[in-house]
Amino acid sequence: MRYEVRLSGSGGQGLILIGIILAEAAGIYDGKNVVQTQSYGPEARGGASKSEVIISDETIYYPKATRLDLLLSMTQKSCDEYYLDLKKDGILIVDSSLVHQVPTNQAYQIPFTRLAKEKLGKVFVANIIAIGAIAEISGVVKESSLTEAVLKRVPPWSAELNKEALRIGMGEGKKAVAKVKRSGL
Amino acid sequence: MRYEVRLSGSGGQGLILIGIILAEAAGIYDGKNVVQTQSYGPEARGGASKSEVIISDETIYYPKATRLDLLLSMTQKSCDEYYLDLKKDGILIVDSSLVHQVPTNQAYQIPFTRLAKEKLGKVFVANIIAIGAIAEISGVVKESSLTEAVLKRVPPWSAELNKEALRIGMGEGKKAVAKVKRSGL
Repeated sequence: MRYEVRLSGSGGQGLILIGIILAEAAGIYDGKNVVQTQSYGPEARGGASKSEVIISDETIYYPKATRLDLLLSMTQKSCDEYYLDLKKDGILIVDSSLVHQVPTNQAYQIPFTRLAKEKLGKVFVANIIAIGAIAEISGVVKESSLTEAVLKRVPPWSAELNKEALRIGMGEGKKAVAKVKRSGL
Repeated sequence: MRYEVRLSGSGGQGLILIGIILAEAAGIYDGKNVVQTQSYGPEARGGASKSEVIISDETIYYPKATRLDLLLSMTQKSCDEYYLDLKKDGILIVDSSLVHQVPTNQAYQIPFTRLAKEKLGKVFVANIIAIGAIAEISGVVKESSLTEAVLKRVPPWSAELNKEALRIGMGEGKKAVAKVKRSGL
Protein backbone atom coordinates (compact mmCIF):
# COMPACT_ATOMS: atom_id res chain seq x y z
CA MET A 1 0.00 0.00 0.00
CA ARG A 2 1.35 3.40 -1.06
CA TYR A 3 -1.09 6.32 -0.93
CA GLU A 4 -0.21 9.71 -2.42
CA VAL A 5 -2.04 12.87 -1.36
CA ARG A 6 -1.55 16.41 -2.69
CA LEU A 7 -3.16 19.36 -0.89
CA SER A 8 -3.21 22.38 -3.17
CA GLY A 9 -4.41 25.96 -3.22
CA SER A 10 -2.94 29.32 -2.35
CA GLY A 11 -0.68 30.56 0.43
CA GLY A 12 -2.59 31.36 3.60
CA GLN A 13 -5.14 28.56 3.26
CA GLY A 14 -3.24 26.43 5.77
CA LEU A 15 -2.36 23.57 3.43
CA ILE A 16 1.07 22.98 4.94
CA LEU A 17 -0.47 22.68 8.40
CA ILE A 18 -3.01 20.06 7.31
CA GLY A 19 -0.26 18.20 5.46
CA ILE A 20 1.71 17.98 8.72
CA ILE A 21 -1.44 17.01 10.64
CA LEU A 22 -2.30 14.21 8.18
CA ALA A 23 1.33 13.01 8.27
CA GLU A 24 1.45 12.96 12.07
CA ALA A 25 -1.93 11.23 12.32
CA ALA A 26 -0.82 8.44 9.96
CA GLY A 27 2.85 8.32 11.00
CA ILE A 28 2.78 8.78 14.76
CA TYR A 29 -0.71 7.59 15.76
CA ASP A 30 -1.45 4.98 13.07
CA GLY A 31 2.18 3.80 12.91
CA LYS A 32 2.55 4.02 9.12
CA ASN A 33 5.60 5.20 7.23
CA VAL A 34 4.98 8.74 6.05
CA VAL A 35 6.84 11.42 4.13
CA GLN A 36 5.42 14.94 4.05
CA THR A 37 6.83 17.52 1.66
CA GLN A 38 6.57 21.12 0.55
CA SER A 39 8.22 22.30 -2.64
CA TYR A 40 8.97 25.90 -3.46
CA GLY A 41 10.16 27.39 -6.68
CA PRO A 42 9.76 30.65 -8.52
CA GLU A 43 5.98 29.94 -8.76
CA ALA A 44 5.64 30.11 -4.96
CA ARG A 45 5.98 33.88 -5.18
CA GLY A 46 2.65 33.92 -7.04
CA GLY A 47 1.03 32.64 -3.87
CA ALA A 48 0.58 29.02 -4.99
CA SER A 49 0.92 26.45 -2.24
CA LYS A 50 1.02 22.70 -2.21
CA SER A 51 1.79 20.12 0.37
CA GLU A 52 2.21 16.39 -0.24
CA VAL A 53 1.80 13.38 2.00
CA ILE A 54 2.84 9.85 1.07
CA ILE A 55 1.60 7.10 3.37
CA SER A 56 2.81 3.53 3.16
CA ASP A 57 3.05 0.27 5.06
CA GLU A 58 6.54 -0.12 3.61
CA THR A 59 9.69 2.00 3.68
CA ILE A 60 9.24 4.93 1.29
CA TYR A 61 12.17 5.03 -1.11
CA TYR A 62 10.79 7.59 -3.53
CA PRO A 63 9.29 10.52 -1.60
CA LYS A 64 7.78 12.50 -4.48
CA ALA A 65 4.11 12.18 -5.36
CA THR A 66 3.83 11.35 -9.05
CA ARG A 67 0.51 9.52 -9.45
CA LEU A 68 -1.92 10.95 -6.96
CA ASP A 69 -4.48 8.83 -5.14
CA LEU A 70 -6.12 11.97 -3.78
CA LEU A 71 -6.01 15.63 -4.79
CA LEU A 72 -7.53 18.44 -2.73
CA SER A 73 -7.86 21.70 -4.64
CA MET A 74 -8.85 24.83 -2.79
CA THR A 75 -8.42 27.16 -5.79
CA GLN A 76 -9.41 26.92 -9.45
CA LYS A 77 -5.80 27.38 -10.52
CA SER A 78 -4.51 24.47 -8.46
CA CYS A 79 -7.35 22.25 -9.70
CA ASP A 80 -6.54 23.07 -13.33
CA GLU A 81 -2.82 22.59 -12.74
CA TYR A 82 -2.81 19.29 -10.87
CA TYR A 83 -5.90 17.39 -12.03
CA LEU A 84 -3.92 15.46 -14.64
CA ASP A 85 -1.57 14.12 -11.95
CA LEU A 86 -4.44 12.07 -10.49
CA LYS A 87 -4.54 8.32 -11.09
CA LYS A 88 -7.42 7.12 -13.27
CA ASP A 89 -9.45 6.11 -10.21
CA GLY A 90 -7.97 8.81 -7.96
CA ILE A 91 -10.17 11.00 -5.76
CA LEU A 92 -10.63 14.70 -6.55
CA ILE A 93 -11.99 16.87 -3.73
CA VAL A 94 -12.59 20.55 -4.42
CA ASP A 95 -13.64 23.51 -2.31
CA SER A 96 -16.81 24.25 -4.26
CA SER A 97 -17.03 27.75 -2.80
CA LEU A 98 -13.86 28.61 -4.75
CA VAL A 99 -13.59 26.04 -7.58
CA HIS A 100 -16.44 26.45 -10.06
CA GLN A 101 -15.14 24.62 -13.11
CA VAL A 102 -14.63 21.03 -12.07
CA PRO A 103 -12.94 18.82 -14.69
CA THR A 104 -14.92 15.64 -13.89
CA ASN A 105 -18.41 14.78 -12.66
CA GLN A 106 -16.84 12.28 -10.27
CA ALA A 107 -15.36 14.94 -7.99
CA TYR A 108 -16.38 15.48 -4.38
CA GLN A 109 -17.54 19.08 -4.24
CA ILE A 110 -17.76 20.52 -0.72
CA PRO A 111 -17.85 24.26 0.09
CA PHE A 112 -15.15 24.19 2.80
CA THR A 113 -14.59 27.94 2.95
CA ARG A 114 -18.31 28.77 3.00
CA LEU A 115 -18.95 26.18 5.72
CA ALA A 116 -16.10 27.61 7.83
CA LYS A 117 -17.53 31.09 7.48
CA GLU A 118 -21.22 30.31 7.92
CA LYS A 119 -21.08 27.55 10.53
CA LEU A 120 -18.09 28.70 12.58
CA GLY A 121 -17.57 32.35 11.68
CA LYS A 122 -13.87 31.67 10.99
CA VAL A 123 -12.70 31.25 7.40
CA PHE A 124 -9.29 30.04 8.61
CA VAL A 125 -10.62 26.64 9.72
CA ALA A 126 -11.69 25.70 6.17
CA ASN A 127 -8.50 23.62 6.03
CA ILE A 128 -9.48 21.61 9.12
CA ILE A 129 -12.96 20.98 7.70
CA ALA A 130 -11.24 19.78 4.52
CA ILE A 131 -8.90 17.37 6.30
CA GLY A 132 -11.87 15.91 8.20
CA ALA A 133 -13.65 15.28 4.90
CA ILE A 134 -10.49 13.78 3.38
CA ALA A 135 -10.17 11.30 6.26
CA GLU A 136 -13.78 10.23 5.82
CA ILE A 137 -13.74 9.96 2.03
CA SER A 138 -10.37 8.23 1.73
CA GLY A 139 -10.30 6.12 4.89
CA VAL A 140 -6.53 6.58 4.85
CA VAL A 141 -6.32 7.65 8.49
CA LYS A 142 -8.32 6.84 11.64
CA GLU A 143 -10.74 9.48 12.91
CA SER A 144 -9.26 9.28 16.43
CA SER A 145 -5.68 9.65 15.12
CA LEU A 146 -6.64 12.68 13.08
CA THR A 147 -8.34 14.32 16.05
CA GLU A 148 -5.25 13.75 18.23
CA ALA A 149 -2.95 15.13 15.57
CA VAL A 150 -5.11 18.24 15.09
CA LEU A 151 -5.18 18.96 18.80
CA LYS A 152 -1.39 18.59 19.03
CA ARG A 153 -0.80 21.16 16.26
CA VAL A 154 -3.32 23.94 16.96
CA PRO A 155 -3.12 26.52 19.78
CA PRO A 156 -4.93 25.39 22.97
CA TRP A 157 -7.45 28.28 22.84
CA SER A 158 -8.73 27.01 19.50
CA ALA A 159 -9.16 23.33 20.48
CA GLU A 160 -12.97 23.41 20.58
CA LEU A 161 -13.24 25.39 17.35
CA ASN A 162 -10.99 22.91 15.59
CA LYS A 163 -12.81 19.87 16.98
CA GLU A 164 -16.07 21.33 15.69
CA ALA A 165 -14.46 22.00 12.30
CA LEU A 166 -13.29 18.37 12.15
CA ARG A 167 -16.79 17.14 13.03
CA ILE A 168 -18.30 19.27 10.26
CA GLY A 169 -15.72 17.99 7.78
CA MET A 170 -16.25 14.36 8.71
CA GLY A 171 -20.02 14.81 8.46
CA GLU A 172 -19.73 16.42 5.03
CA GLY A 173 -17.38 13.62 3.97
CA LYS A 174 -19.92 11.00 5.01
CA LYS A 175 -22.71 12.79 3.14
CA ALA A 176 -20.56 13.08 0.02
CA VAL A 177 -19.67 9.38 0.09
CA ALA A 178 -23.35 8.41 0.52
CA LYS A 179 -24.30 10.64 -2.42
CA VAL A 180 -21.69 9.06 -4.69
CA LYS A 181 -22.87 5.59 -3.67
CA ARG A 182 -26.50 6.48 -4.43
CA SER A 183 -25.60 7.89 -7.81
CA GLY A 184 -23.63 4.70 -8.55
CA LEU A 185 -20.48 6.53 -9.66
CA MET B 1 24.71 24.27 -6.04
CA ARG B 2 22.71 21.80 -3.93
CA TYR B 3 22.68 22.35 -0.18
CA GLU B 4 21.25 19.74 2.19
CA VAL B 5 20.17 20.67 5.73
CA ARG B 6 18.81 18.37 8.44
CA LEU B 7 17.28 19.85 11.61
CA SER B 8 17.07 17.17 14.30
CA GLY B 9 16.03 16.76 17.90
CA SER B 10 12.87 15.78 19.69
CA GLY B 11 9.19 16.55 19.15
CA GLY B 12 8.16 19.89 20.64
CA GLN B 13 11.43 21.69 19.85
CA GLY B 14 9.86 23.34 16.82
CA LEU B 15 12.12 21.77 14.19
CA ILE B 16 9.36 21.40 11.60
CA LEU B 17 8.50 25.08 11.94
CA ILE B 18 12.10 26.24 11.36
CA GLY B 19 12.36 23.82 8.43
CA ILE B 20 9.35 25.52 6.84
CA ILE B 21 10.73 28.97 7.68
CA LEU B 22 14.13 28.20 6.12
CA ALA B 23 12.40 26.72 3.07
CA GLU B 24 10.15 29.76 2.62
CA ALA B 25 13.05 32.17 3.12
CA ALA B 26 15.13 30.46 0.44
CA GLY B 27 12.26 29.45 -1.87
CA ILE B 28 9.92 32.41 -1.80
CA TYR B 29 12.15 35.35 -0.85
CA ASP B 30 15.54 34.27 -2.30
CA GLY B 31 13.92 32.60 -5.33
CA LYS B 32 15.76 29.27 -5.03
CA ASN B 33 14.30 25.82 -5.66
CA VAL B 34 13.55 24.22 -2.32
CA VAL B 35 12.08 20.97 -1.05
CA GLN B 36 11.24 20.67 2.63
CA THR B 37 10.39 17.29 4.14
CA GLN B 38 9.35 15.51 7.31
CA SER B 39 9.54 11.75 7.61
CA TYR B 40 7.67 9.71 10.18
CA GLY B 41 7.99 6.08 10.98
CA PRO B 42 7.65 3.90 14.03
CA GLU B 43 10.56 5.81 15.65
CA ALA B 44 8.51 9.03 15.65
CA ARG B 45 6.50 7.64 18.55
CA GLY B 46 9.67 7.84 20.62
CA GLY B 47 9.52 11.61 20.26
CA ALA B 48 12.30 11.91 17.68
CA SER B 49 11.83 14.68 15.14
CA LYS B 50 13.67 15.69 12.01
CA SER B 51 13.01 18.11 9.26
CA GLU B 52 15.02 18.43 6.05
CA VAL B 53 15.53 21.30 3.63
CA ILE B 54 17.21 20.98 0.25
CA ILE B 55 18.09 24.24 -1.47
CA SER B 56 19.27 24.42 -5.05
CA ASP B 57 19.70 26.73 -8.01
CA GLU B 58 18.52 23.87 -10.22
CA THR B 59 15.39 21.72 -10.29
CA ILE B 60 15.55 19.21 -7.44
CA TYR B 61 15.03 15.72 -8.85
CA TYR B 62 15.98 13.76 -5.75
CA PRO B 63 14.32 15.29 -2.70
CA LYS B 64 15.92 13.20 0.05
CA ALA B 65 18.93 14.45 1.98
CA THR B 66 21.66 11.83 1.79
CA ARG B 67 24.94 13.71 2.26
CA LEU B 68 24.31 16.60 4.60
CA ASP B 69 25.97 19.96 4.19
CA LEU B 70 24.63 21.05 7.57
CA LEU B 71 23.26 19.17 10.57
CA LEU B 72 21.59 20.84 13.54
CA SER B 73 21.22 18.55 16.54
CA MET B 74 19.20 19.69 19.50
CA THR B 75 19.45 16.39 21.42
CA GLN B 76 22.33 13.99 22.12
CA LYS B 77 20.41 11.14 20.51
CA SER B 78 19.88 12.96 17.22
CA CYS B 79 23.54 14.03 17.16
CA ASP B 80 24.70 10.44 17.66
CA GLU B 81 22.26 9.13 15.08
CA TYR B 82 22.85 11.57 12.23
CA TYR B 83 26.46 12.73 12.58
CA LEU B 84 27.69 10.13 10.10
CA ASP B 85 25.32 11.48 7.41
CA LEU B 86 27.36 14.71 7.28
CA LYS B 87 29.68 15.30 4.34
CA LYS B 88 33.39 15.32 5.21
CA ASP B 89 33.46 19.13 5.28
CA GLY B 90 29.83 19.46 6.44
CA ILE B 91 28.84 21.78 9.28
CA LEU B 92 27.68 20.37 12.63
CA ILE B 93 25.82 22.75 14.92
CA VAL B 94 24.70 21.49 18.33
CA ASP B 95 22.64 22.91 21.15
CA SER B 96 25.40 22.75 23.76
CA SER B 97 22.91 23.09 26.60
CA LEU B 98 21.58 19.61 25.63
CA VAL B 99 24.35 17.91 23.63
CA HIS B 100 27.39 17.25 25.83
CA GLN B 101 29.27 14.60 23.87
CA VAL B 102 30.18 16.18 20.56
CA PRO B 103 31.74 13.79 18.02
CA THR B 104 34.17 16.32 16.51
CA ASN B 105 36.11 19.35 17.72
CA GLN B 106 35.02 21.17 14.58
CA ALA B 107 31.40 21.56 15.66
CA TYR B 108 29.70 24.85 16.37
CA GLN B 109 28.49 24.58 19.97
CA ILE B 110 25.88 27.16 20.96
CA PRO B 111 23.55 26.82 23.97
CA PHE B 112 20.30 27.66 22.12
CA THR B 113 17.94 26.46 24.83
CA ARG B 114 19.85 28.18 27.64
CA LEU B 115 20.02 31.43 25.66
CA ALA B 116 16.25 31.29 25.01
CA LYS B 117 15.57 30.76 28.69
CA GLU B 118 18.07 33.24 30.14
CA LYS B 119 17.89 36.06 27.60
CA LEU B 120 14.22 35.87 26.62
CA GLY B 121 12.54 33.84 29.38
CA LYS B 122 10.93 31.58 26.74
CA VAL B 123 12.46 28.18 26.04
CA PHE B 124 10.23 27.74 22.99
CA VAL B 125 12.17 30.29 20.90
CA ALA B 126 15.38 28.20 21.06
CA ASN B 127 14.48 27.02 17.53
CA ILE B 128 14.37 30.59 16.19
CA ILE B 129 17.73 31.40 17.81
CA ALA B 130 19.09 28.26 16.12
CA ILE B 131 17.81 29.17 12.65
CA GLY B 132 19.35 32.64 13.03
CA ALA B 133 22.71 31.06 13.83
CA ILE B 134 22.35 28.61 10.92
CA ALA B 135 21.75 31.48 8.47
CA GLU B 136 24.85 33.27 9.72
CA ILE B 137 27.15 30.23 9.82
CA SER B 138 26.07 28.73 6.48
CA GLY B 139 25.29 31.85 4.47
CA VAL B 140 22.69 29.74 2.65
CA VAL B 141 19.90 32.31 3.07
CA LYS B 142 19.78 36.12 3.28
CA GLU B 143 19.21 37.66 6.72
CA SER B 144 16.36 39.81 5.40
CA SER B 145 14.65 36.82 3.76
CA LEU B 146 14.87 34.82 6.95
CA THR B 147 13.39 37.66 8.99
CA GLU B 148 10.47 38.01 6.56
CA ALA B 149 9.83 34.27 6.60
CA VAL B 150 9.87 34.13 10.41
CA LEU B 151 7.41 37.00 10.71
CA LYS B 152 5.08 35.33 8.20
CA ARG B 153 4.95 32.08 10.19
CA VAL B 154 4.73 33.16 13.84
CA PRO B 155 1.67 34.63 15.58
CA PRO B 156 1.55 38.45 15.43
CA TRP B 157 1.74 38.84 19.24
CA SER B 158 5.14 37.15 19.23
CA ALA B 159 6.72 39.18 16.41
CA GLU B 160 9.05 41.21 18.66
CA LEU B 161 10.07 38.17 20.71
CA ASN B 162 10.93 36.26 17.54
CA LYS B 163 12.84 39.17 16.00
CA GLU B 164 14.91 39.40 19.19
CA ALA B 165 15.50 35.61 19.10
CA LEU B 166 16.72 35.91 15.49
CA ARG B 167 19.06 38.76 16.42
CA ILE B 168 20.53 36.70 19.28
CA GLY B 169 20.97 33.71 16.98
CA MET B 170 22.64 35.75 14.24
CA GLY B 171 24.95 37.36 16.83
CA GLU B 172 25.93 33.96 18.26
CA GLY B 173 26.47 32.67 14.72
CA LYS B 174 28.84 35.55 13.95
CA LYS B 175 30.77 34.98 17.18
CA ALA B 176 31.04 31.26 16.46
CA VAL B 177 32.35 31.88 12.93
CA ALA B 178 34.94 34.37 14.25
CA LYS B 179 36.09 31.86 16.88
CA VAL B 180 36.52 29.10 14.28
CA LYS B 181 38.49 31.48 12.06
CA ARG B 182 40.79 32.46 14.93
CA SER B 183 41.45 28.86 15.86
CA GLY B 184 42.30 28.14 12.21
CA LEU B 185 40.00 25.11 11.92
